[in-house]
Amino acid sequence: MKNLTATLLISCPDQHGLVAKIANFIHANNGNIIHADHHTDFTTGLFLSRIEWQLEGFYLPKELIGKAFEAIAESLNAQWKLYFSDHIPRLAIFVSQQDHCLFDLILRQKAKEFIAEIPLIISNHENLKYIADQFGIEFHYFPINKENKQEQENQQLELLEKYNIDLVILAKYMQVLSPNFIEKFPQIINIHHSFLPAFVGAKPYHQAYKRGVKIIGATGHYVTQDLDAGPIIEQNVVRVSHRDEITDLIREGKDLERIVLAKAVRFHLENRVLVYGNRTVVFE
Amino acid sequence: MKNLTATLLISCPDQHGLVAKIANFIHANNGNIIHADHHTDFTTGLFLSRIEWQLEGFYLPKELIGKAFEAIAESLNAQWKLYFSDHIPRLAIFVSQQDHCLFDLILRQKAKEFIAEIPLIISNHENLKYIADQFGIEFHYFPINKENKQEQENQQLELLEKYNIDLVILAKYMQVLSPNFIEKFPQIINIHHSFLPAFVGAKPYHQAYKRGVKIIGATGHYVTQDLDAGPIIEQNVVRVSHRDEITDLIREGKDLERIVLAKAVRFHLENRVLVYGNRTVVFE
Amino acid sequence: MKNLTATLLISCPDQHGLVAKIANFIHANNGNIIHADHHTDFTTGLFLSRIEWQLEGFYLPKELIGKAFEAIAESLNAQWKLYFSDHIPRLAIFVSQQDHCLFDLILRQKAKEFIAEIPLIISNHENLKYIADQFGIEFHYFPINKENKQEQENQQLELLEKYNIDLVILAKYMQVLSPNFIEKFPQIINIHHSFLPAFVGAKPYHQAYKRGVKIIGATGHYVTQDLDAGPIIEQNVVRVSHRDEITDLIREGKDLERIVLAKAVRFHLENRVLVYGNRTVVFE
Amino acid sequence: MKNLTATLLISCPDQHGLVAKIANFIHANNGNIIHADHHTDFTTGLFLSRIEWQLEGFYLPKELIGKAFEAIAESLNAQWKLYFSDHIPRLAIFVSQQDHCLFDLILRQKAKEFIAEIPLIISNHENLKYIADQFGIEFHYFPINKENKQEQENQQLELLEKYNIDLVILAKYMQVLSPNFIEKFPQIINIHHSFLPAFVGAKPYHQAYKRGVKIIGATGHYVTQDLDAGPIIEQNVVRVSHRDEITDLIREGKDLERIVLAKAVRFHLENRVLVYGNRTVVFE
Repeated sequence: MKNLTATLLISCPDQHGLVAKIANFIHANNGNIIHADHHTDFTTGLFLSRIEWQLEGFYLPKELIGKAFEAIAESLNAQWKLYFSDHIPRLAIFVSQQDHCLFDLILRQKAKEFIAEIPLIISNHENLKYIADQFGIEFHYFPINKENKQEQENQQLELLEKYNIDLVILAKYMQVLSPNFIEKFPQIINIHHSFLPAFVGAKPYHQAYKRGVKIIGATGHYVTQDLDAGPIIEQNVVRVSHRDEITDLIREGKDLERIVLAKAVRFHLENRVLVYGNRTVVFE
Repeated sequence: MKNLTATLLISCPDQHGLVAKIANFIHANNGNIIHADHHTDFTTGLFLSRIEWQLEGFYLPKELIGKAFEAIAESLNAQWKLYFSDHIPRLAIFVSQQDHCLFDLILRQKAKEFIAEIPLIISNHENLKYIADQFGIEFHYFPINKENKQEQENQQLELLEKYNIDLVILAKYMQVLSPNFIEKFPQIINIHHSFLPAFVGAKPYHQAYKRGVKIIGATGHYVTQDLDAGPIIEQNVVRVSHRDEITDLIREGKDLERIVLAKAVRFHLENRVLVYGNRTVVFE
Repeated sequence: MKNLTATLLISCPDQHGLVAKIANFIHANNGNIIHADHHTDFTTGLFLSRIEWQLEGFYLPKELIGKAFEAIAESLNAQWKLYFSDHIPRLAIFVSQQDHCLFDLILRQKAKEFIAEIPLIISNHENLKYIADQFGIEFHYFPINKENKQEQENQQLELLEKYNIDLVILAKYMQVLSPNFIEKFPQIINIHHSFLPAFVGAKPYHQAYKRGVKIIGATGHYVTQDLDAGPIIEQNVVRVSHRDEITDLIREGKDLERIVLAKAVRFHLENRVLVYGNRTVVFE
Repeated sequence: MKNLTATLLISCPDQHGLVAKIANFIHANNGNIIHADHHTDFTTGLFLSRIEWQLEGFYLPKELIGKAFEAIAESLNAQWKLYFSDHIPRLAIFVSQQDHCLFDLILRQKAKEFIAEIPLIISNHENLKYIADQFGIEFHYFPINKENKQEQENQQLELLEKYNIDLVILAKYMQVLSPNFIEKFPQIINIHHSFLPAFVGAKPYHQAYKRGVKIIGATGHYVTQDLDAGPIIEQNVVRVSHRDEITDLIREGKDLERIVLAKAVRFHLENRVLVYGNRTVVFE
């Protein structure tokens, strides 16, 4: 049984005494650090850190920890976020017609591979509604086209708010989100079915086949305004050969997509990912 | 001890009776097939095959086998090549300042990982001459620049002819060969230090670092007129993390480059590679 | 749409003219070979081959092909099997309490990653019955213990016969099948959650953790009388670190188990696996 | 140019305030932490850590740092070691007849992939002496047999002392070191050419071939009294198929051996490896 913990993700310009300052703050309040991982990026001069400590016996009540840390953070010129293990993140999964990532995420959530709730599935097709029904999840269908896109996305954003969604997962959602959507709801993880930056855009397996590559890949990344160019969280690959036709690449790729997306989501939900510039630190 | 063998690499439009025709030709002449691998590419309707058979007791003398097969090949509208195991291919290795692939190829050749001779090393720098000396290989220095490029390349081509070179290996040769060179000597294998088609061109590890990829790769490919776009023979990858700075990517990449280039060269020298379109069949 | 095909898996002592004889048999009857892969094992002197050809226009009717080939096979002293693509294999999946491989196989079958029917799930626990119900598959519960094992297994064997089962898949079935069962129904594929032959027997992830390995694996193999020692069809691995506790190994291992078992099953169902001695040829 | 740094490797029972105590010690003395990685092993209740800081401007002189830290360490009941980046470790490489790991280590040292000196090569054969000569390294030949083993090993130990050796690397040294040797010189890294614990002992590639595995591996580990059972530092694997004969496994394995051994050695030399029980933490 794990007790209540706090996790701090922090980045700031590198300087003397950083680790001591943060560790002292925790220790002075009787916290027990159970994970601490620091990284210094010498190219940018940034210190990046993830610290998790047990809150049992901590002198500060939960709601005051952030405020108390603020003073320290300010003196460090730091960007930081504080997470508590009793907050259960709420996910909305966006899908189109393919079911493998959707099934996979739901089954992993049920198997407690990550701790989250999945109250909402959104799709631009109706054919996966039966899965939502099967697992008792709300399903909303948005028949998006060029004309109605803005209005449909606005409805989607309203749903995200209504359901208190923390993270949107594009689990093979074959629609490009508008800049407006991304601006209003920037916490989005996408699975792209290629080894980015190779084969950006549509039909990457067809592109890979045509190019005759010997290895195919998949990429889990945060969504930004630039298509398929957001910070990469996780990638994986599998070897293919001349015997593999496009249908084989798609089949092998589905395994990659499942594993890479699930891993990216898990890292995010465990507060292991720090974005800086267009790069990520993943504190595994 | 392996006896003398012949290897046939053939591609032709798919049609009934292909395997029978080829196998009968060999069997009728008392050849014993020791390896046979056929592939049908349904997208292009092509049949591609590699067959190796023992020549001991073969009714046809070596010099007549090709002529005898020609009639069959013509009826099949086939492209084909015939190789004999007693022909020792001769390699010219082109290098610049990095020594790891050069050392690697020489040591593998000495360890008989592939059967070939290396009579010639060509470089646009002088600093690796000592390795050539150490192993008793001719070393020729060509201080190429924009002005003298054509003339220097012509001298290089003359050397290739003089030394009866079968294959040029670009083992981290940091010069782009001119279209003229490639046209006159088209048997060239290059190692590119990225997972193509990602990070074409210069400084791929720097590009990879900037993009924040979680896996880096290397690609062994035939050189064509399009930079870094020739048919891929072999690729491999290795996982990296935020802890890896560019120097780490370069170090890890050197291992990839060695292994991928050596494998591409070995496949080629064992006559396992069939190019069709911009793709390769590698009969492993 | 793929047309009706026949697939021949054959092994025999290596000898002149093998490929010609087999290819001629097919060609003489107007068959079109679409896949042919031959392997010579020089250690044992065995020729092993897989040939698939289209039956449209084939002169021999399906039911006579085997008989007609028998004469040739006998002259070659060959072991062989003939498969037709219109036979849909029927699978029985044996499970205990873990659901991930069961779900995975069912979803792949529904996605047509392999062509088979799954009429039967057998378990020594009741907790996965709901999955069988969900997908409309018969579920039979056998509360096996030392005393009733023989009698329960006999009932299982009766079910396999009743349902015309071609292949039993042990999808994390935590019971050792008796020698009698294996003798009476020898077509069984098991997933073992280690990189065999490391960590044979119970609790391999615990063994792996204790040994401090840096990579864990999974193995799909045919079941023989020797525990975890049958011919290996497929293996895969994933890197782990000191940060991974046993629960992490189990989570990562589940992904391996799914992928390895599914691949082993697919290779088997596509008639790509030839067993000789305790080794397999997998004609990918 | 990297400045002088100190690296602390420490393990102790987990307790409140550990990170703070250590960080304060460094900060109070004006040290700048550039790498810090902590790990808590919940199974054993151990805290394990690696901290590296810059010594420029550090208030304590190098020779007093250890003494000053002793008081803290004692209060923590800790095991610890302190390393300074200006100490260049000295390696002795033990080989038999195979040259690939020897060449590889020498070339990596010359390429500065790790910082060390290689003053001594020891072998039970004479055939690799030419490599030692080529690179100006002392070569000592010990024709070990059952009768003279103890006496020869004593001479070897004397050489290790004479040359101030910090680390012995068994780079395919086909002799089992006696318990006496290991006790007297316990800093030894070995490369075993299998994926341990599979295929312990002699001829692992032959064992792997016979078992019909689909993946082969190599393991870099510390040598202990139990053959091939010491703490594992690094492992890697490569996929093989039925087409690979034993000679192919050996060729592929040589690449694995080179990479795995080099990585294990580099991790050790960068003071990234902490052994506890029979496991290692590798602070990558």
